[in-house]
Amino acid sequence: MKSIQWSNDCLCLLNQTALPGSLEYIDCRDHRRVGEAIKRLEVRGAPAIGAAAAFGLVLGARELAANGENLRMLLPQVAEELLNTRPTAVNLSWALKRMMAVLDSVSSDADIVVALEQEAVAIMEEDRQVNAAISRHGLELFEQPIHAILTHCNAGALATVEYGTALGVIRQAWANGKIGRVFADETRPLLQGARLTVWELMQDGIPVTLITDNMAGWVMKKQMVQAVIVGADRIALNGDVANKIGTYSVAVLAQKHNIPFYVAAPLSTFDFSLQTGDSIPIEERDSCEVAAFGGQVVAPAGVEVFNPAFDVTPHELITAIITEHGVLRPPFCTAIASIQKEKGGK
Amino acid sequence: MKSIQWSNDCLCLLNQTALPGSLEYIDCRDHRRVGEAIKRLEVRGAPAIGAAAAFGLVLGARELAANGENLRMLLPQVAEELLNTRPTAVNLSWALKRMMAVLDSVSSDADIVVALEQEAVAIMEEDRQVNAAISRHGLELFEQPIHAILTHCNAGALATVEYGTALGVIRQAWANGKIGRVFADETRPLLQGARLTVWELMQDGIPVTLITDNMAGWVMKKQMVQAVIVGADRIALNGDVANKIGTYSVAVLAQKHNIPFYVAAPLSTFDFSLQTGDSIPIEERDSCEVAAFGGQVVAPAGVEVFNPAFDVTPHELITAIITEHGVLRPPFCTAIASIQKEKGGK
Repeated sequence: MKSIQWSNDCLCLLNQTALPGSLEYIDCRDHRRVGEAIKRLEVRGAPAIGAAAAFGLVLGARELAANGENLRMLLPQVAEELLNTRPTAVNLSWALKRMMAVLDSVSSDADIVVALEQEAVAIMEEDRQVNAAISRHGLELFEQPIHAILTHCNAGALATVEYGTALGVIRQAWANGKIGRVFADETRPLLQGARLTVWELMQDGIPVTLITDNMAGWVMKKQMVQAVIVGADRIALNGDVANKIGTYSVAVLAQKHNIPFYVAAPLSTFDFSLQTGDSIPIEERDSCEVAAFGGQVVAPAGVEVFNPAFDVTPHELITAIITEHGVLRPPFCTAIASIQKEKGGK
Repeated sequence: MKSIQWSNDCLCLLNQTALPGSLEYIDCRDHRRVGEAIKRLEVRGAPAIGAAAAFGLVLGARELAANGENLRMLLPQVAEELLNTRPTAVNLSWALKRMMAVLDSVSSDADIVVALEQEAVAIMEEDRQVNAAISRHGLELFEQPIHAILTHCNAGALATVEYGTALGVIRQAWANGKIGRVFADETRPLLQGARLTVWELMQDGIPVTLITDNMAGWVMKKQMVQAVIVGADRIALNGDVANKIGTYSVAVLAQKHNIPFYVAAPLSTFDFSLQTGDSIPIEERDSCEVAAFGGQVVAPAGVEVFNPAFDVTPHELITAIITEHGVLRPPFCTAIASIQKEKGGK
């Protein structure tokens, strides 16, 4: 199962909106289709949309080159178009910035297209290695085996190029006998937990119990889970974490029950330009996501809906952030500044 | 709109599983159909199922009498059958006990049937008055007008005979300019918030915003609501409250944000035999309620599910309990003991 595959002139995406009902693939042959796929959540998950956008830019560059257009003048528009598909996950702008930086190092248009493809492939390959490293580092959080861990949304193989961040840690811990079971929040409104996380874990034979989001507190109260782990869409310098709506509630509930709350994310999810999570843009999506599902309307016609796709969990609620550079502990501002220095990021 | 109507030999129930898509009524002409309606949640809400069960017993008594059976010997079986439909809401046993007590005061079988019908009608009428009283008392909690209040599940006209408990307070407070808007948790798995609460409020022209359950914490963090109010299915002597799954999480979140958390319930919801909420039986329902959404399967086949229909909110998280006898404040054990004494309950 691969969420993203690249072959010469086509980005093949596993259609995540069709899962688990059917296994469909979407062939994207131009950047517009890639942008559509990101908007429609056919490809979703911060690292996955970063990689998809990178290949979108390759497809855009190819088209411009084939039409004899001025690449240096027009490619920024393609990048802008891809960037504007979704606002919250910073991996999108991270990947596109990294791709556009390629233009500084090559001269001819033909070279640019080749170099862009190489860079996109590098982003994809690195994501594989990054997830493997995150999973390895995550293992140190489970010195003592625990009965069960709770996760929210899907930070698995589907949300990345392979293996996953939060689910990567879970896979590794389970393989090492450190976790007996996963409780998966269904994650309304789009049910990434029920549709994607449960599907991934069942495919791997990892015991999983599906619950509705509003059961998480009761499951903690009944001492059925001993830890929580989630992915991230954007992390500020102080350790505030934007992630799928509902993450904040789970973090508050975990604190109330003295359960550790872990975030697993690559460095590409850190926004070194933001001091706190307060200024992270929160995408609001269409009301029909809440008022209906799969075409079936569940609320009265004309109902007013509030539908933020993400929320921000303040750093005080987070026990540790697992990155490919190791496990960060509070105070996160110090830990993140040190990593920023190390990698020369700004 | 009436959830429950009685006319001579028929209990007419508004089918709550069909709302808001269609307005259907179910004519129950024997106690078996009433029991089915309670099990299937065609009628739901603690006070409503109490009243429905009372009329179920009337129908059972009529049938026994018409068949020349021994009422005193066989009616307890009918009561038992109705009692076993759902375990958590204590109103069911409260109503059936009250009905069975009628047998002590009359002699002939014909008189029993008449007396039972009178008692069931009294239960129904009293519920109307009780809700009116709860709503009046609830008003004292809103000295200062607030922008918005959050509610979970449906404790409205549909959950009672008329007007509602939590929604009764909301109706009264809105009519008095004390509340500007209601945020309704959709309340998975069966969406009583999206389907029933939103429908009731829109019918009354009360501004309502629908959210998924996992947005409640974020809505509080963003200071979009200033109070929470819910109904109850069973309240123990110390003030612990069993209510729809998810209530506990909302209460924890309200505490974290210093938002008052109110419970509105009639005295028939108090279980004077239980010291704490720990021994309240929690109904677990079929996994398909979680694995499907509005009839559409959303999780992989064979998925394991945990589906408790209720949870228990400990009294420490509750600001006040609004009853027809007035607003109870902590320490609830004292307030509840005093009410118990007053009404001579045991």
